Amino acid sequence: MLAVCNHWNQYIYRMNYKKIDADDLLFFKNSVGDAHVFTDEISLEKYSRDETDGVQFPPEVVVKPRTAQEVSNILKYCNENRIPVSPRAAGTGLSANSLCVHGGVMLSIERFNEILKIDERSLQVMVEPGVITEALQNTLQEMGLFYPVDPSSRGSSFIGGNVACNSGGPRAVKYGVVKDFVLNLEVVLPNGEIMWTGANTLKNSTGYNFTQLFVGSEGTLGIVTKLVLKLLPYPKYNNVMLAPFKSMDDAGAAVSAVFRAGIIPSCIEFMEREAIVYVMNFLGDVTVPLADDTQATLLIEVDGNDLEVIQKDCEKIYEVLTQFDVGEILFADSDAQKTDLWRMRRNIAYAVKKTNMTVEEDTVVPRADLPELLKHIKEVGKNYNFRSVCYGHAGDGNVHVRILKDQLSDDYWKNEVPKGIREIFKKVVELGGTISGEHGIGWIQIPYMDIKFRESHLELMRGVKKVFDPNNILNPGKIF
Amino acid sequence: MLAVCNHWNQYIYRMNYKKIDADDLLFFKNSVGDAHVFTDEISLEKYSRDETDGVQFPPEVVVKPRTAQEVSNILKYCNENRIPVSPRAAGTGLSANSLCVHGGVMLSIERFNEILKIDERSLQVMVEPGVITEALQNTLQEMGLFYPVDPSSRGSSFIGGNVACNSGGPRAVKYGVVKDFVLNLEVVLPNGEIMWTGANTLKNSTGYNFTQLFVGSEGTLGIVTKLVLKLLPYPKYNNVMLAPFKSMDDAGAAVSAVFRAGIIPSCIEFMEREAIVYVMNFLGDVTVPLADDTQATLLIEVDGNDLEVIQKDCEKIYEVLTQFDVGEILFADSDAQKTDLWRMRRNIAYAVKKTNMTVEEDTVVPRADLPELLKHIKEVGKNYNFRSVCYGHAGDGNVHVRILKDQLSDDYWKNEVPKGIREIFKKVVELGGTISGEHGIGWIQIPYMDIKFRESHLELMRGVKKVFDPNNILNPGKIF
Repeated sequence: MLAVCNHWNQYIYRMNYKKIDADDLLFFKNSVGDAHVFTDEISLEKYSRDETDGVQFPPEVVVKPRTAQEVSNILKYCNENRIPVSPRAAGTGLSANSLCVHGGVMLSIERFNEILKIDERSLQVMVEPGVITEALQNTLQEMGLFYPVDPSSRGSSFIGGNVACNSGGPRAVKYGVVKDFVLNLEVVLPNGEIMWTGANTLKNSTGYNFTQLFVGSEGTLGIVTKLVLKLLPYPKYNNVMLAPFKSMDDAGAAVSAVFRAGIIPSCIEFMEREAIVYVMNFLGDVTVPLADDTQATLLIEVDGNDLEVIQKDCEKIYEVLTQFDVGEILFADSDAQKTDLWRMRRNIAYAVKKTNMTVEEDTVVPRADLPELLKHIKEVGKNYNFRSVCYGHAGDGNVHVRILKDQLSDDYWKNEVPKGIREIFKKVVELGGTISGEHGIGWIQIPYMDIKFRESHLELMRGVKKVFDPNNILNPGKIF
Repeated sequence: MLAVCNHWNQYIYRMNYKKIDADDLLFFKNSVGDAHVFTDEISLEKYSRDETDGVQFPPEVVVKPRTAQEVSNILKYCNENRIPVSPRAAGTGLSANSLCVHGGVMLSIERFNEILKIDERSLQVMVEPGVITEALQNTLQEMGLFYPVDPSSRGSSFIGGNVACNSGGPRAVKYGVVKDFVLNLEVVLPNGEIMWTGANTLKNSTGYNFTQLFVGSEGTLGIVTKLVLKLLPYPKYNNVMLAPFKSMDDAGAAVSAVFRAGIIPSCIEFMEREAIVYVMNFLGDVTVPLADDTQATLLIEVDGNDLEVIQKDCEKIYEVLTQFDVGEILFADSDAQKTDLWRMRRNIAYAVKKTNMTVEEDTVVPRADLPELLKHIKEVGKNYNFRSVCYGHAGDGNVHVRILKDQLSDDYWKNEVPKGIREIFKKVVELGGTISGEHGIGWIQIPYMDIKFRESHLELMRGVKKVFDPNNILNPGKIF
């Protein structure tokens, strides 16, 4: 077993669960085939991490089933034997969502990688959860179909992981998040039962909405083995522009003003000055003008089926933006330039991470309160002596705060910085927002849940969990 | 106590609950004031019905609180004393959703009738549940804001009732249903606790989505006392057209083709020939051409902020429609004509109801399977000797089937027709659909729930119900 090189205790409640033994391994091998059960050190190391900095929990075994029936057999067995099971998608989570904090089985869905049925007539797709989101989007695009939800990780994350975390992304502002596109889920429950949560329909008022209960439940209620998603016609064209502002206040106010002018851009992203500096250094081959007095920039995309209309919308947006103290607005004049601007936006997190130990918080507030939140974040940073780089989905009021360790001591990073994070989250909740917009709570955000929820509210969540997973074997130690 | 003039048994499990006595009434009067507690025969009669034909259950008392704290006091008391409480919005339900099938308290939310806060900057509104949906829409429209969800009952139904049933309406095809606009709910639980289910944000990945669990839960988990809804900029213009088809197949195929051409109309409604005949007779002052060979018509609306664009979209739709066997397409050339066409569509249910004892089923399937479903409905009608009038939201695959009693005997209506309905619902589920798209299950659809759900699935729903309402006092006898 690997050493766990982080500052948390390993397997806190491990004693409540059965340790995996040779009989268990034999059962798993018989269930999914020898070739799909892993206990070697390299595998355990690989599956002990996700994209969360500084957290590592090796599973006792990695099992890779291929069918819902295999998942059912494994869950039933583990349920009867009290072995914890953590479902794993692509491991791009930012909250240690899938890590085996209680040991046990890591159940990887990576072999569920087929697009099962594209229904062009009803604009739906049935897909397995292990398909990479961007691969699904590309396949659909070739047919003129559109699944818009585009988390920054879409090039590597699985659609099943996106469902588990109710992922968003830049286009959420116009099109919505995962929850707005999931129509129906095939799930396997801890008792081995395989069921569909809803119907393949755009409307459904037939009892409790279990589809929506599963979206964002981070693999704690059941394991998704098939998804039915709503699709749209692919919008043929888009324009991209970049607007630099001298103050965050102005950038924030401009965002609200765009919507009030009757325009819903497909994306309206926020990057503070530091974020742009980091990412230009990181990429090396992308440069945008960055005046000395630019504090924040907005990356705005408008899409649609008619170039003229898009042009008109962009002109209107231009008019709105220039009512504020905005610098020179850059319009992307080629696909290459659009790609570059998006590469910038999508690579900020990687750029900052590469230079530093960091932690990313996923704050979200009502759109218009973004400037106030940003101001507060910087004040807290000053008070607690940490730097942060902020960027995110301004149209949704969803800002990612990547806090840098820099020269802070391990002790300060572990004990003092979280106090600053608590202050940020308190402000978020005070503004009517919440502590995660699209990353989920996973394991590392649990200490902050009391800021958003009363104990009685968490107790209700635990009650619901118990209905589906009475023995608490499914991704235990997550959310609450 | 009133006699119950319907064919169902009254208060089936009544013995499990406490009968309301003088002490209880005193408590209610002290809680909300004498003027807001009703036990007179006229009140009990009025609140014994909704818009469901032939079903009547008088409450023992009608209580009309004004604040969440009053609701809390009442629920706590009833929970401790095992008195059933059915929350009631405007009583426009079509599944006996709010009727006191176990007697007890009818808790009317009609005094929760204020729009609390319109946030133009973040495009949100905080509203009380007793506001009439159309009144809310009109107030918002004056400010250039748009809450698009428009159930046919919007002129009388409350926004809170819409949430309870996850209502839809014609515009759902472009904009979505209630669930897509509810951001956050203040609810009172049976134990008297007042809590917010989520956050006032467009994105939320913070534990289980209780907001979505409450939407469509028909008042069985808690009573909503405040709502936060997402808004959009109001689209300035729209065009309306009416297209007659010689066959339902063609009408259905045309619906799919419009979307495949890249256009998302704001509405695409279906009315079979009979529906148009009924509603023209009913209204008296609206006439549309109805050729002898017209079997079905589509009412299509396109909206947006640019008349030219709308015109272009309409031309594209025209091109698509004329690839099918379509009659002369009528374009509304004035606001008055648009209003007339919509009055037609919205009054069909009333028109049919006025002439006959009826029951309306709320079938929904994937969009492209609508023609197959319609064919099946007519076949079942032939086999069971009943007529039906079909109309609804073709873009969503959501068709309302209003079955007419005509000269059928009471016994046949009660015992044989439901067998036909079962056959229709079996087909619906076989096609990947479900037995209610926007009306909810309430009380009268319960006998069909086994067609859609296995017992184990219903057991999970009951489990969730028990987490929130362990004593089963809240709208008991509904959904399952």
